[in-house]
Amino acid sequence: MTGQTLIWVDGERADVLPLPDRGLDFGDGLFETLLLEHGELRYIDLHLQRLQRGLALLSFPDCLSVASKHLQIALTQLQLNNWSRAALRLTVTRGDGPRGYAPPRKPQARIIIRATQLASGDGLLPQAAHLITATTRWGSQPQLAGIKHLNRLEQVLAAAEWQRAGADEALMLGQASQLVSVTAGNLFLHRDGVLYTPALDDCGIAGTRRQLVIEQWAAAIGLQVVVAAGLDQDALEQADEVFYSNTLWGLRPVASCGSRHWHSHRVCNALFQHYRGEQA
Amino acid sequence: MTGQTLIWVDGERADVLPLPDRGLDFGDGLFETLLLEHGELRYIDLHLQRLQRGLALLSFPDCLSVASKHLQIALTQLQLNNWSRAALRLTVTRGDGPRGYAPPRKPQARIIIRATQLASGDGLLPQAAHLITATTRWGSQPQLAGIKHLNRLEQVLAAAEWQRAGADEALMLGQASQLVSVTAGNLFLHRDGVLYTPALDDCGIAGTRRQLVIEQWAAAIGLQVVVAAGLDQDALEQADEVFYSNTLWGLRPVASCGSRHWHSHRVCNALFQHYRGEQA
Repeated sequence: MTGQTLIWVDGERADVLPLPDRGLDFGDGLFETLLLEHGELRYIDLHLQRLQRGLALLSFPDCLSVASKHLQIALTQLQLNNWSRAALRLTVTRGDGPRGYAPPRKPQARIIIRATQLASGDGLLPQAAHLITATTRWGSQPQLAGIKHLNRLEQVLAAAEWQRAGADEALMLGQASQLVSVTAGNLFLHRDGVLYTPALDDCGIAGTRRQLVIEQWAAAIGLQVVVAAGLDQDALEQADEVFYSNTLWGLRPVASCGSRHWHSHRVCNALFQHYRGEQA
Repeated sequence: MTGQTLIWVDGERADVLPLPDRGLDFGDGLFETLLLEHGELRYIDLHLQRLQRGLALLSFPDCLSVASKHLQIALTQLQLNNWSRAALRLTVTRGDGPRGYAPPRKPQARIIIRATQLASGDGLLPQAAHLITATTRWGSQPQLAGIKHLNRLEQVLAAAEWQRAGADEALMLGQASQLVSVTAGNLFLHRDGVLYTPALDDCGIAGTRRQLVIEQWAAAIGLQVVVAAGLDQDALEQADEVFYSNTLWGLRPVASCGSRHWHSHRVCNALFQHYRGEQA
């Protein structure tokens, strides 16, 4: 049944979180969303690497091997239940602690995993998305840029905007009006044979599929990728093709953003075929 | 017993939070910390007003009267238990919802109250605090400035800095190196008969005690207050007195920030005496 949800807290099936928890109190934690497909967690190493960068930046205790073990516990149960496709959200918080912002001296990380069953994929290029430009922007915060921490209110507000507008996603700008991302994915522009994606030094989340495009997939189809600071809305207008990447879609073409429409999804499709080939 | 904790979830005593919860997932919520003293919640109207501003900004369902009712339930039980002084944290989240950033169309807010017993106050001016300047800065995010939402990772990291340094608090700057606040309080500088406090258009939390100083307490002791944008570290160096405000201390003088020391706390003390007088 699609949409069914199973939750584990610290490795045990549960539907409640012990309180207090600093993840709830302050967003003091990190998360990853992993794709389960054909009984496997896709690109788990890239997710755990990003998690580790976040744990180090937030001075968390080293709980990577425990997180990995709890993912395996969840995975085993989902395999037994014959789930074929699911989104697994792994959340790590700094756990309990005394009142106030200062972390406890010896924090005990808490690990929450939520699996949501998804409809089987058809392996086809996702339908092209219609975007609005969100009025909610990314805050400028270089010290936390790139990692996937739990402070995600900006994306929540921008997602509420696309939802109200009846769109599929929203373009999110940074404080200097630069292109950053969509609410749940990284942005790519194609122009004159070159692929551009916004630098994420100021804000944004460095996605695992973005990393794969930059480091492997683009080269595999003979494309150069430029990670560019200061791409603006003119660059978007002038792009001959636009798409975004995330864990669940892989890659999704963009059909329009406001009044600008794109009809070719040739580059996105070539990358997508390469990505699907890796899953075979 | 100091440090004892009681928790209510949606008006019932509980020690767990139902999952999923968007407060945990994204920091999709707000909070207030109220001071219980002599059986009363101090300045509850100011807290509820700020909460209401936050609820509106985040497009939450109107749950202000429910939050207020749950505070009264907690208050009644604490009075029965003869608690004389406590910190009450009121947390409101957007509750449950489907996977993903976009809020549910009809969210059901969840209300968590945590009461932590505090030692009885002696009514004296708090001991002057030693500050470091945190390397962790406030992000620049004008759209969320002022309200007390659950995305508080910057303050957590800055608080970890003062804790590691053995200080009492940390000065936090904004992205343009402007003075903003300490990790858990609003900043005031006194110079040549005028009180200055940083404008919070770009980041920071507009505290209830800050509001009282600006709107009432300063005038009561014949002081002018200037809410100033772009106060910098030179302004701090040149101040003849520095203090900060928050719910639990009321006002707390600053003894030092790095190598700069202040020995006079005359203005802070006069404001503090006025504040204590209001409690009598």
